[in-house]
Amino acid sequence: MFEALSGPPISDHKWLTALLDAEKALAAALAKAGVIPPEAAAEIARHCDPEGFDAAEMGRLAVRSGNPVVPLARQLTAQVPGDAARYVHFGATSQDIMDTAVVLVAKNTVASVLADVDAAADACARLAGEHRDTVMIGRTLMQHALPTTFGLKCAGWLVALDEAAANLRAVRLEAQLGGAVGTLSVFGDADVPALFAAELGLAEPRIPWHTNRTRLAELAAALGVLAGVFGKIALDVTLLAQTEVAEVAESSGGGSSTMPHKQNPVRSVLITAAVKRVPGLVSTMLAAMPQEHERAAGGWHAEWETLGSLLSLLGGAAARLKDLLRGLRVDRERMRANIDMTGGLVMAEAVVTRLAPLIGRVEAGDLVAEIAGSGQPFRAALLADPRITLSEEDIDGALDPAGYLGAAAEFVDRALRR
Amino acid sequence: MFEALSGPPISDHKWLTALLDAEKALAAALAKAGVIPPEAAAEIARHCDPEGFDAAEMGRLAVRSGNPVVPLARQLTAQVPGDAARYVHFGATSQDIMDTAVVLVAKNTVASVLADVDAAADACARLAGEHRDTVMIGRTLMQHALPTTFGLKCAGWLVALDEAAANLRAVRLEAQLGGAVGTLSVFGDADVPALFAAELGLAEPRIPWHTNRTRLAELAAALGVLAGVFGKIALDVTLLAQTEVAEVAESSGGGSSTMPHKQNPVRSVLITAAVKRVPGLVSTMLAAMPQEHERAAGGWHAEWETLGSLLSLLGGAAARLKDLLRGLRVDRERMRANIDMTGGLVMAEAVVTRLAPLIGRVEAGDLVAEIAGSGQPFRAALLADPRITLSEEDIDGALDPAGYLGAAAEFVDRALRR
Amino acid sequence: MFEALSGPPISDHKWLTALLDAEKALAAALAKAGVIPPEAAAEIARHCDPEGFDAAEMGRLAVRSGNPVVPLARQLTAQVPGDAARYVHFGATSQDIMDTAVVLVAKNTVASVLADVDAAADACARLAGEHRDTVMIGRTLMQHALPTTFGLKCAGWLVALDEAAANLRAVRLEAQLGGAVGTLSVFGDADVPALFAAELGLAEPRIPWHTNRTRLAELAAALGVLAGVFGKIALDVTLLAQTEVAEVAESSGGGSSTMPHKQNPVRSVLITAAVKRVPGLVSTMLAAMPQEHERAAGGWHAEWETLGSLLSLLGGAAARLKDLLRGLRVDRERMRANIDMTGGLVMAEAVVTRLAPLIGRVEAGDLVAEIAGSGQPFRAALLADPRITLSEEDIDGALDPAGYLGAAAEFVDRALRR
Amino acid sequence: MFEALSGPPISDHKWLTALLDAEKALAAALAKAGVIPPEAAAEIARHCDPEGFDAAEMGRLAVRSGNPVVPLARQLTAQVPGDAARYVHFGATSQDIMDTAVVLVAKNTVASVLADVDAAADACARLAGEHRDTVMIGRTLMQHALPTTFGLKCAGWLVALDEAAANLRAVRLEAQLGGAVGTLSVFGDADVPALFAAELGLAEPRIPWHTNRTRLAELAAALGVLAGVFGKIALDVTLLAQTEVAEVAESSGGGSSTMPHKQNPVRSVLITAAVKRVPGLVSTMLAAMPQEHERAAGGWHAEWETLGSLLSLLGGAAARLKDLLRGLRVDRERMRANIDMTGGLVMAEAVVTRLAPLIGRVEAGDLVAEIAGSGQPFRAALLADPRITLSEEDIDGALDPAGYLGAAAEFVDRALRR
Repeated sequence: MFEALSGPPISDHKWLTALLDAEKALAAALAKAGVIPPEAAAEIARHCDPEGFDAAEMGRLAVRSGNPVVPLARQLTAQVPGDAARYVHFGATSQDIMDTAVVLVAKNTVASVLADVDAAADACARLAGEHRDTVMIGRTLMQHALPTTFGLKCAGWLVALDEAAANLRAVRLEAQLGGAVGTLSVFGDADVPALFAAELGLAEPRIPWHTNRTRLAELAAALGVLAGVFGKIALDVTLLAQTEVAEVAESSGGGSSTMPHKQNPVRSVLITAAVKRVPGLVSTMLAAMPQEHERAAGGWHAEWETLGSLLSLLGGAAARLKDLLRGLRVDRERMRANIDMTGGLVMAEAVVTRLAPLIGRVEAGDLVAEIAGSGQPFRAALLADPRITLSEEDIDGALDPAGYLGAAAEFVDRALRR
Repeated sequence: MFEALSGPPISDHKWLTALLDAEKALAAALAKAGVIPPEAAAEIARHCDPEGFDAAEMGRLAVRSGNPVVPLARQLTAQVPGDAARYVHFGATSQDIMDTAVVLVAKNTVASVLADVDAAADACARLAGEHRDTVMIGRTLMQHALPTTFGLKCAGWLVALDEAAANLRAVRLEAQLGGAVGTLSVFGDADVPALFAAELGLAEPRIPWHTNRTRLAELAAALGVLAGVFGKIALDVTLLAQTEVAEVAESSGGGSSTMPHKQNPVRSVLITAAVKRVPGLVSTMLAAMPQEHERAAGGWHAEWETLGSLLSLLGGAAARLKDLLRGLRVDRERMRANIDMTGGLVMAEAVVTRLAPLIGRVEAGDLVAEIAGSGQPFRAALLADPRITLSEEDIDGALDPAGYLGAAAEFVDRALRR
Repeated sequence: MFEALSGPPISDHKWLTALLDAEKALAAALAKAGVIPPEAAAEIARHCDPEGFDAAEMGRLAVRSGNPVVPLARQLTAQVPGDAARYVHFGATSQDIMDTAVVLVAKNTVASVLADVDAAADACARLAGEHRDTVMIGRTLMQHALPTTFGLKCAGWLVALDEAAANLRAVRLEAQLGGAVGTLSVFGDADVPALFAAELGLAEPRIPWHTNRTRLAELAAALGVLAGVFGKIALDVTLLAQTEVAEVAESSGGGSSTMPHKQNPVRSVLITAAVKRVPGLVSTMLAAMPQEHERAAGGWHAEWETLGSLLSLLGGAAARLKDLLRGLRVDRERMRANIDMTGGLVMAEAVVTRLAPLIGRVEAGDLVAEIAGSGQPFRAALLADPRITLSEEDIDGALDPAGYLGAAAEFVDRALRR
Repeated sequence: MFEALSGPPISDHKWLTALLDAEKALAAALAKAGVIPPEAAAEIARHCDPEGFDAAEMGRLAVRSGNPVVPLARQLTAQVPGDAARYVHFGATSQDIMDTAVVLVAKNTVASVLADVDAAADACARLAGEHRDTVMIGRTLMQHALPTTFGLKCAGWLVALDEAAANLRAVRLEAQLGGAVGTLSVFGDADVPALFAAELGLAEPRIPWHTNRTRLAELAAALGVLAGVFGKIALDVTLLAQTEVAEVAESSGGGSSTMPHKQNPVRSVLITAAVKRVPGLVSTMLAAMPQEHERAAGGWHAEWETLGSLLSLLGGAAARLKDLLRGLRVDRERMRANIDMTGGLVMAEAVVTRLAPLIGRVEAGDLVAEIAGSGQPFRAALLADPRITLSEEDIDGALDPAGYLGAAAEFVDRALRR
C-alpha cells in the first residue's frame, strides 16, 4: 500500500530476472572461455526465463541455505535437459550470482534515478534562468537576512544535483565471480570474470570481492548524498510554501480529509519522508562492511533489502522531484513583497556598506545597528539622523534590494554553464 | 523473495484491517459518547471489511494526499448507505486513523514477537539448567581466558532476553484521536479518545500526540534493544559453531551450493543479518521525532515502513531464535577438550590464587606469568620450579577447570529464578 | 572550543573519579563480605584520589591493553603501601571497573539532565496555563489548518517531556562485577556484587552483564527519545520565530556578524544541532550490542565515548531548553492576527460542521469547498450564496476562531494534572 | 583519557589555526582582487596567530551567536591596528570562515590518513607477495570451505584499501566564500572565491555552497567506506588470532589485568571499536544535509564535531592498521595444519571436479556428498568405495589443498599490479 508513496520496490520479478541473467551470463562467459560447450550455454540461456520460476517458492526454499541462489540453481539445473544441466552455475558460488544480481538491479535503477535527476536538474536550470533576476529575501537561521534571487536559490539546487549525480555516476558497478572462496577453484581461469562482466555490461573487478564491499558501500553512500540534496530542495519548497510565506506552490497540492481549503505540498512531503529514511539505511550498509573471511555470516544477507530500499526510495523521490520542479509555481510579487516585511531593516548591511567609507566600518556598523534597533521606521530614522551623512538618494539606493545582489546573477550564469 | 529470509512483512491486508478497525472503533466510540447515532455506527461497522477495499488502489490514490486514509475514508463513505455515511471518519483527521492503525499493527506483531521471545527464553533456561555444570572455556577478546560453564553462558542469554522483553512489554501503545489540529474541533468531547482506545484494547493517551512521537520512538528503541540481544546470541552460536571450535551446532545446518560437507549455522546467519539492519531503522525513527507544529510535513510518513520493517525483522528473528535455541546441539566433550588447547595456561590465575597467600599476590602473579611465558609445558614447569611452593595435589587442583568456576552455578540458579 | 556549544563533556576528571570510586567500592564490598581485611579496604580508599592520577598518561598506557583500567589498577597497586596493595582490584576484571564507571558517570549526568528537563517541563506547564486560551492557528504539513491554542501546543511539549523523562528515569543502572569471565573465580562469592552496588548507590545486577548490554542500550535509547522531544520543541520555536510568523521569540537572540538587525533563535538552533547528532550515536550503541563470548573484542570499547557524547549532548541541550522555555516571549496579538491571513478560509470546517445538519455532511463539504476555492472573500461569498442556509450570525459564529477550539482547554487541563 | 585509544582529536589549536588561516586568506584574496589595500591584508595576516586567541573563551562567547567565528572576528578586528581593522572578515559571513576551516582541517587530516592507508596497503602488498603460495583454509559463513592462500586474503585487503583510498582522494575539498546569503553582497566580485581557494590550496567551488553540503557528505561517506575496510581487516585478524585458530598474531599482544598468559589482538580490537562508531556518524552527516534556505538553523552546527570525530577515528585507526599490518606474525604451519581439521572433507569439491567427467557432475556431487557424510575417514572411504572410479594418485591429487587453488596466485599478481 505504501509503495506508491515511497517508491517502486525492487520487485521479485526484477530480482529473478537479474539472478537468471547472471546465470545465463556465467554460462556464456564460460563458453567463450572454452570451459564449457557453447551448446550447453545456449541451452542454459533458453531456460533462464523468470516466467519459469516462482520467486515466493525460491524465497521459502532459501531459508535452508540462507540465500535464494541455492534453490534457484537447483531448479534451473533440473529444468535444463541433457548434458547441459551439468554446466548450470558451473564453478560459481551462490554469492557470485547474488552479488552480480544486486549490481544488475542497482545498475538499472540507478540509470532510471539519474535520468530523473538530470530532468530535475534541467528544470532547476530553467527556473534559475527564468528567475535570474527575481529578487527575494535570503533567509539565514530562518530569519530574513539580505536579498538574493530565486535564480540563485535554484542555481544552488542545480549545482547540488549535478554534483551528487556525478558522484553516483562515478560508482563502479562490478560483476562478481570467484567461486566458493574466491579462487575460481573449479575452472581456475582468471579471465572468465572479465568475460562474465562484459556479458552483463558491468565493470570487471580486479579480483573477487566477496568480502570487500567497497563498491556497494560507495553506491549506498552516493545514493545517500543524492537523497540529502533531494531533501534540501524539498525542505526549501516546504518552507517557501508555508501559508505565511507563500512564495512558491506545487503545481497541484494535496487535499486534506478535513480541511477543504488546504493545498499541501505533497510532493515535498513525500520526498522529505523518503529522504529521512535514507541515512539509517546507508549506515546499515556501512556497518555491514566488515565481513568475515571469504564469505560473511550475515553481512551480505543484510545488504539485499537495505540496498533495495535505498534504490526504491531514491527512485520514488527522484521521479517526484522532477515532477515537483517542472511544475513549481513561483510568485514573484509575493517574493518582492516579503522583503519589505521588516521595513527595510534587511537592507541595513547595504546602508553600512555605503556609510563605511565615510565614517569607518565599525562606526557605521554600530550606528546603523543603533538606528535599526530603535523601533522607528528604518528609512525615516535614517533620514532623520544627522550622523547618517548619506543623501536621500544614497539611502534609497541602499534600501533597494535589487541594488544589493552582489554576484548573484554571475553565480547563476556560472551554475548554468554546466 | 527475501521476506521468507528476513521476516513476515506487515501485509497490505494487515494494514487495511487495522485502518478499518480504527474507523469502526471511531464510530463505535462516538456512538457510545452520544455524538452519532448507534445505528450509524453499526452500519459503518458492517462496511469496515478489508475485503471490500483494494490496498494497491488505496496506495495509488494516496499519492494525492500523502496518506492512504484520505481515499480509504472516501471509499468507505461511498460504501456506507444512507445517513450513516455522514458519520464515517467523523471528526477525525487522517493521522488519527493512520497512527492508530500503526499502533494496532505494532500491538499485534509485538505480542507475537514476545511469545517467541518467551519461548526462546524458556529454551535458554532449559539449556542453562541442563548445562549448569558443563565446563567450557570462557573467552575474552576472542582469546581463551578462564573456565566458565555453558550454563552460565545460557543464563546470560536468558537474563538479556528477559530484560529486553520486559522493556518492550513496558511500552505504552496508545490510540490516537485529536481531529485536524488535536482539538477534536468537530465534536469537542475530550472523553471520546478513551472510549476509542477501549474499543481497540489500546491505552488512552493523555492528550492527542500527533507530533509527540515519544511512544513510537520508545517502541522502536525497545525493538532495537531486543534485536541487539538476538544478535549477541546468534554471534555466540556462530562463533561456537566455527569448524575450529565446534562446541555447538544448529539442529540442521544449511547446505552449500558447492561444498557438500558444509553445515552452515543458517539460523544464526539470518538472525545476524536481520539484527544488522535494526540500528539504522531505529535511528530513522528517532531522527523523525522532531515533527512540525500540529502535523508534520514528512516525519510521520517516514515512520510507517520503517516501523513496519522493524516489526517484520524482529518477528522473523524471534521465531528463528526460538527454533535455534530449541534445537541447539551442544558438544560437552568438545567443550571440555577445547579448554586444554593451551596446555593448562588458562588456569594460571587459579595457580596465582593458590600461590598468593604463600608468597604475596604480586610476586605470585609475576612468577606464574614467567613460567607461563617460558614455552615449557605448564604443569611440568610448575612442578619443576622450586619457587612454586605448592604440592603436586595443589597444582593439579589449581589446574582443574571444574574447580575454578567461582559463583557460576549460583549465578545460573539466580538467572533461573525468573 | 565547541564544548560550550554542544554540551559539557564528560571530563577526564569525572572518568578518573568514577573509575577510582569503583575500585574503592570494590575494596569496601570485599571487606564487608569478609573477603579482604577492612584495614586493606580503608588503605585502598585513601589512595583512590583522582588527584594522584594523570588521565592523559593513563590513556597513553591504555593503548597496550585496550582500556585504562589496566594501568590505573597497576598504579593504584603501586601507590597503596604494604599488604593492602595485594587487595587492590581484587578479583575484578578491567571491564568490571570500566562498566561500573560508565554507569556512575551516566547516573550523575542523567540526574542533572532530568533536573533540567523537569525545570523545562515546569516552564512548559506555566506557559500552557498562561496561554490556555491564547488562540493561534494550528498548522499541518506547514499550512494553516484550524485554530488551536498556544496553551495546547505547550501542553503537547509538556506531555512529551514528561513521558520521555519517565522513560529515562526507568532505566535501571546496574553495577558490574564478575571477574575475568563473569564467574567471580577469584573469590566466588555471589553476594559481593550486591554489596558493591550498594556502596555506589547503583542497582544490583541479576548476574554479571559483561556481554549483555541491555541496560546501556536502554539508557542510550531513552536519551535518544528525550533528544527527539527536545528537537520537536526547538523546531516549533524556530518555525514560530521565523520573520514571517513572529509569534514567539527567544528572550535574547543571537547576533549576526554581518546583519545587525537579526535576532537568531540561537538556543533552538543549538538544541537542534545537538539533537541531530543523537540518532546516529544511539544506533552505534545498538549496533555494538552483539558482543562476543564473555568479553567483546571492540564492542564495549566503542561505547565509552559514544555514551559520553550522548550524555554531554543531552546535558547541554537540556540546560539550553530550560533556559529557552523560561524566557520564551509570546506575541498573542501576532498569533491572533496570523489566523486571519487566509481570510477566514481556515474556518471552513467550522462552516461545514454547522451546515452539515441542514444539508448533509458530504454536500456541505463539497459546497463549502467550492466557495472556499472561488477566490472570493470567504465571508462575503458565504453570505451571498443562497445554498448556504445559515444566518449571518451563524456564519460569523462559525468564522470565530475562539469558538472552534473543541477540547483544547480540557486537554490543557489534563496535561497540567501531572 | 580515551583519545589515545580512539584517535588524535582535532584540537582547539588546529581549529583556531584553520579559522585564522581562512581569515588571513580572505584578506589576501581581497587584496589580490583589489578590493582591499594590500597593506591591510599584510597587517591582518600578522595578527592571524592562534597564540593570540583563547579557544575556550571563543567557545564560551560563541554561545551567543551559535558559532565561534563571530567572537573570533570581533577579537581579530580589535587586535588589528588602524585602518586595516575595517578589512578584517570583510564581506564574509561566519559560515564562510567556519566551512573553510572545516575543509582545511579535513584536508590536513585526510592527507595524514591517506599516508597511513598507503603504508598499510604497502604492508598488505608485501604480505600478499610473501604469502602468494601460503595455503590456508578459506572460510565461508565461519565454516571451513575450500583452500585458498593467505596471499589472496591479503590481496583482498589490499584491493579494498586501494579502492577506498582512491574514493577518499577523489573528494573535492572546496573553499567557501559567499557572504551573508551567498551573493557576496559587500563586494560583489565573483572571482574572489577562486583567489581565496588558491591561497589555501583548496578547490574553487562553482558557487557558494552554504546549504549545499554535497562535498562534506561525500567526504564523510568516503571516510565511512574506508572505515568499513579497516573493520574487515581487523575482523579477519581477530578471527585468525583466536586461540583455536592461531594462524596470525599481532606483533605484541595486549596484556590482561587478570590473565598473564593472554595475548590480546589489541590493535584489531581498537580498530574495531573505532570502526563501529563510524556508520552512525556518517548517518548524522547525511541527515544534516537538508539545510534551510541560505543558511541552516542547526544543520551545519551539527557537522563540526561529527566530522571531527570521523577524522579523528579514521586517523587513529589508520595509524594502528599500518602498525598492525607491518608487524603481523603469520604462522604458515598452523595454516597448513588447520586445513586438515576436517580430515580432507574440505577437498570434497576437488574430488567432485575430478569425478564429474567420469560419471556426471550431479552424480559425482551426490556420491561424494554421501561418502563425506558417512562419518568414515574421507580418504579411506573414497579409496574403499567401488563407485569412485579414480586412481589412488588421482584421489591424493584431489585431496592436496595446494593443487586446488584455482586462480589464487594469478589474482594475487593482479592485485599487486597496482
